[in-house]
Amino acid sequence: MKHLRSIDELGVDGLRRLLDLSDHMAEINRRPVPKVPALRNKTVVSLFFEDSTRTRLSFETAAKRLSADTMSFSVGTSSVNKGESLRDTIETVAAMGVDAFVVRHKSSGVPWQISRWTEASVVNAGDGWHEHPTQAILDCYTVRTALNRPEGFDGMHIAIVGDIKHSRVARSNVWAFASLGARITLVAPHTLLPPSLEGWPVDVVHNIDDIIDRVDVLYMLRMQRERMHEALVPSLREYTAQFGLTPGRADRLQSHALVMHPGPMNRGVEMAVDPGELPGSVITQQVTNGVSVRMAVLFDLLGSGSALVGEASS
Amino acid sequence: MKHLRSIDELGVDGLRRLLDLSDHMAEINRRPVPKVPALRNKTVVSLFFEDSTRTRLSFETAAKRLSADTMSFSVGTSSVNKGESLRDTIETVAAMGVDAFVVRHKSSGVPWQISRWTEASVVNAGDGWHEHPTQAILDCYTVRTALNRPEGFDGMHIAIVGDIKHSRVARSNVWAFASLGARITLVAPHTLLPPSLEGWPVDVVHNIDDIIDRVDVLYMLRMQRERMHEALVPSLREYTAQFGLTPGRADRLQSHALVMHPGPMNRGVEMAVDPGELPGSVITQQVTNGVSVRMAVLFDLLGSGSALVGEASS
Amino acid sequence: MKHLRSIDELGVDGLRRLLDLSDHMAEINRRPVPKVPALRNKTVVSLFFEDSTRTRLSFETAAKRLSADTMSFSVGTSSVNKGESLRDTIETVAAMGVDAFVVRHKSSGVPWQISRWTEASVVNAGDGWHEHPTQAILDCYTVRTALNRPEGFDGMHIAIVGDIKHSRVARSNVWAFASLGARITLVAPHTLLPPSLEGWPVDVVHNIDDIIDRVDVLYMLRMQRERMHEALVPSLREYTAQFGLTPGRADRLQSHALVMHPGPMNRGVEMAVDPGELPGSVITQQVTNGVSVRMAVLFDLLGSGSALVGEASS
Repeated sequence: MKHLRSIDELGVDGLRRLLDLSDHMAEINRRPVPKVPALRNKTVVSLFFEDSTRTRLSFETAAKRLSADTMSFSVGTSSVNKGESLRDTIETVAAMGVDAFVVRHKSSGVPWQISRWTEASVVNAGDGWHEHPTQAILDCYTVRTALNRPEGFDGMHIAIVGDIKHSRVARSNVWAFASLGARITLVAPHTLLPPSLEGWPVDVVHNIDDIIDRVDVLYMLRMQRERMHEALVPSLREYTAQFGLTPGRADRLQSHALVMHPGPMNRGVEMAVDPGELPGSVITQQVTNGVSVRMAVLFDLLGSGSALVGEASS
Repeated sequence: MKHLRSIDELGVDGLRRLLDLSDHMAEINRRPVPKVPALRNKTVVSLFFEDSTRTRLSFETAAKRLSADTMSFSVGTSSVNKGESLRDTIETVAAMGVDAFVVRHKSSGVPWQISRWTEASVVNAGDGWHEHPTQAILDCYTVRTALNRPEGFDGMHIAIVGDIKHSRVARSNVWAFASLGARITLVAPHTLLPPSLEGWPVDVVHNIDDIIDRVDVLYMLRMQRERMHEALVPSLREYTAQFGLTPGRADRLQSHALVMHPGPMNRGVEMAVDPGELPGSVITQQVTNGVSVRMAVLFDLLGSGSALVGEASS
Repeated sequence: MKHLRSIDELGVDGLRRLLDLSDHMAEINRRPVPKVPALRNKTVVSLFFEDSTRTRLSFETAAKRLSADTMSFSVGTSSVNKGESLRDTIETVAAMGVDAFVVRHKSSGVPWQISRWTEASVVNAGDGWHEHPTQAILDCYTVRTALNRPEGFDGMHIAIVGDIKHSRVARSNVWAFASLGARITLVAPHTLLPPSLEGWPVDVVHNIDDIIDRVDVLYMLRMQRERMHEALVPSLREYTAQFGLTPGRADRLQSHALVMHPGPMNRGVEMAVDPGELPGSVITQQVTNGVSVRMAVLFDLLGSGSALVGEASS
């Protein structure tokens, strides 16, 4: 694997390989000294053209636990402000000696463009509404471990609830969950679905109460306040009433069902219950697993097998 | 000690223990290679919701000299901007594996809230007008070493001059100096004193010239320009005339008296002399000692005694 | 060498020494593990009062490859915003233990001021329109290696094209190239030349077509959009027509001629060709060489000769 730009490009074999590797990384993370020298002297540069502290910290933590050097570059302090082209920025940073770029950008497709301009590996950390592949992998890993389903998700029913249209998480997760065998139902109002779902391996319902008592995984998406201003939902209160996870709905979940959320949550909107009170919530585990999964991704891109043995010297 | 949120919670025994430990850290800092492996593979995260380069750099330097990994998180680039609750931010960052949070926030009490949401240690690096305990400890350490008073401050007279009302430094320092035995006089106009001083172990005067020639330590607080706009002082010029350290007043200090300031100074306002020209100024030593004291705090929270021996391997 | 503030202060002997040392650093950078312990436990602080991701990353990469600790300080999050004087900021940061400051500031002369206030070494990373010495050294290094001229630049003809008046790069490069023996021609409209060139070792022409077919090095400066608003150029289109490197002009370059640019480029303005299509372009090498040259500078300031042998332990 040279780049990780989409779940599609990764393929189901790649996805399974990364999930297995994540198990190994999770074991490292349970050690008293959670650090290995696997990527010693590799340099990983975070290029975040959109704010995302949680994703950036997760990648940087992953890189450090593999002993890589990390550097961070955010648009606020960059020459991109001076009108430099993205291409020149990439070529300039790459010329200093970079092994991987971790890229977040508000425009779809930017990670593909960047990979044409550099010899370094490119990891998509979110491009517009398009893809967020490491989120999908960490979500698969979380389902796999929490429901103990290492062999795959055949027969599992996963509902993804909320603003599908504007969600890169939904796009990446649909393909990842489906490729492992899950049956997927999207739950959203018409205004928050893409214009066409042709070719998507999903069912659609417009009422969360139709499926709440029969899913194995309830995946809640963030409801952004901006959608209300765009008149895509009548009000946040109305949204919660129709699509939010309320205490009443939480009581109707099956006892083994998982509740997931990519964060940051809007408490009182899509999450109208305290996740700390939900026995099935694995939202914190998603974050913890994110570090293991991103270690697996970086190691798969930059490492060589034998380097993973033993502790880091630094 | 699990957290350092206030001087009160630390107590006098804790304060003395940290001062003794700071001596050891200062010795490490005088070595050609000022680094020990004491906190190797511990992760310290700076969460600064208010700008403070000097305090953040001091903590990060301290963490690095103990070989901890450091990560920095400032509100400008965080999901807090997207409306994420503080609690979710903390739980998210903590889930990646954090041993201590160093927190600055404009609201009093935030470090206590945070410590309820995470297993990690919490160090208060300034909460609103409330407390700034590491500043108080480094000030005690500076007085103790500069006046050679390891046993305590009995009989010592310390004046704290300026905007007591809005100063977390004043609050923390009063309790720390007093617990070591010093007699404390606050010097301020009525408008810059808290509504009530009931229970504070202090005297109050409204004229700096009443005490300038008899104090052992003159502790000047920063005069913020905003106070003038709020009409709490008539003008900065007037403030300087009544409460500033002018050359004439500096001449009246006892020869052994120390001049201190928590920084950043307003030259020409409260500091109407060049501190470089004052023989008693220990303002630079305060900064240098800040690194040793913060090493002591982090080690006390996260370290184990035997790890402090020898040099770092990295 | 205690500081690197200007090319003049460095002198031709110093320049030659740094170029030789850069050869050694470039050799390190070609190793599989491009890291040496030369500056282990030295602390290098970047103080950037103006945005410049590329220069800051280059210095930080250089410092890390020499195993120095790095800390970064940008004005957006600093006490300078609170009205603290620059001097107090420097003295405060220095008191925490700093071996070198790398400084960029919009005002000429700031690196000299700073060096009066601290025992640490000061490297000028660009002060106003004044100097940018490491850019000049890396440009000399790039010419020297690309044209294989280790002994000096006697008989070489270098044209510097564009906004000379507002360019610290032009100022530093004229002196560096000239001191190695090159003949220099400035190419610019009257409005973009300094009021006086008395004492500058240069010729001036106002038409790029007069020299395009006879130079050994064509050094293009960035044309800033602001200049148009200031009415110093009639329009960017007009500027390109008169002074830009267009395909037609590129065809007239001698086959061995180098094309250089300090970045960030304005494609379509001064660079009206794709540099990737120009056989003589060494723009990417400039960036790569920048890391080696900055390693040489930091090592010359902070290192001791024997430390450069062997690999880093971390």
